[in-house]
Amino acid sequence: MVKQAMPKAVVLLSGGLDSVTVLALAREQGFECYALSLDYGQRHNAELHAARRLARAANVQAHKVVRLGLGDFGGSALTDTAIAVPDHAVPGIPVTYVPARNTVFLSLALGWAEVLGAWDLFIGVNAVDYSGYPDCRPEFIAAFEQLAQLATKGGVEGGQFRIHAPLIKLSKAEIIREGVRLGIDYAQTVSCYSADAEGLACGHCDACRLRAEGFRVAGVADPTCYI
Amino acid sequence: MVKQAMPKAVVLLSGGLDSVTVLALAREQGFECYALSLDYGQRHNAELHAARRLARAANVQAHKVVRLGLGDFGGSALTDTAIAVPDHAVPGIPVTYVPARNTVFLSLALGWAEVLGAWDLFIGVNAVDYSGYPDCRPEFIAAFEQLAQLATKGGVEGGQFRIHAPLIKLSKAEIIREGVRLGIDYAQTVSCYSADAEGLACGHCDACRLRAEGFRVAGVADPTCYI
Repeated sequence: MVKQAMPKAVVLLSGGLDSVTVLALAREQGFECYALSLDYGQRHNAELHAARRLARAANVQAHKVVRLGLGDFGGSALTDTAIAVPDHAVPGIPVTYVPARNTVFLSLALGWAEVLGAWDLFIGVNAVDYSGYPDCRPEFIAAFEQLAQLATKGGVEGGQFRIHAPLIKLSKAEIIREGVRLGIDYAQTVSCYSADAEGLACGHCDACRLRAEGFRVAGVADPTCYI
Repeated sequence: MVKQAMPKAVVLLSGGLDSVTVLALAREQGFECYALSLDYGQRHNAELHAARRLARAANVQAHKVVRLGLGDFGGSALTDTAIAVPDHAVPGIPVTYVPARNTVFLSLALGWAEVLGAWDLFIGVNAVDYSGYPDCRPEFIAAFEQLAQLATKGGVEGGQFRIHAPLIKLSKAEIIREGVRLGIDYAQTVSCYSADAEGLACGHCDACRLRAEGFRVAGVADPTCYI
């Protein structure tokens, strides 16, 4: 009996709670996973350390951390030290929005996928507890999938790219329950926008609040280490 | 009389013949230009030196060179030294194709545009003498314009992004005639995939052949300096 090769998938891995859950789901679905992290000048560099730990723990086929000078553009509290990370929710699209971030991330994932011969891209966007980011909505994901067909050698030659966003309709609590089922150690993840060098969370920013509330609603003990 | 502010545009500037012509066209159309170059591990780094010279000569409002580790992915003769740049045309999509390159470049331009409050992006793709790259076709540009609306804060709030690809239906000779009309000094540009550190061209690669043929057909003396 010939062993069938597992299909390859590129999984965007930030080091946060959502993306590591996506990685576990991709593995469960039988994909050979290639994790991609972006070092885009984010303040919370502890995320990248977490991404490396999580990629190792998930035994991915390869993990790449690509440097990208997004911070050069400014305009977001996540990359521009002149803009403060707010410690309370504000209406509308928040200052932590990084312009066109998921478009850039998916484009890079698409480039690597083409080189690998992978047709499946995974991203941990979430339209429920999404903090108001436009590039976390289902219509954005659908538009990117269409673009991928037209943008690539593989697409032109008839292949079909699929952008998987398995968390898109889940609440944070539902994501956490999925992760617990899959055996994820969420203590290893960093979500905080203002985490310190060791990855300890501030407990006050948007990301911290959403995460803490998720654990509370899920009825799961919050393993986050706070400053 | 109040002086009307010029609309801003982000112009992708590679340092080659096409993109500098696009920059001149954007200026002629009355845009205040912000030039964006990507340092993506391309072999022909002389391109970036050319981009800096050309941005200065065009008196752009700002010029950013963003570093991007595309070379980490390999898979293209332009970023992977293990793949030779061919010295003759081959059928199909060539090895100089950089996976998802224009998707990545436009995504970054979109991010900067959002920060600047610009709605217009210019890119020098060309579907006639396009070397067979899928992301140089009109349907790709249209799909990206749709994506930009859905991907961004500005788009969600009702603004309209426009992706300008003014060369898309021009032959290389027609592009050169436009550039001559606009007073461009093409001796300052670098198109060659294998240019040396001083920007001297090999004369044999796909890009060199297309360029030389363009000058010949346009009836313009070729100012390119060859090795």
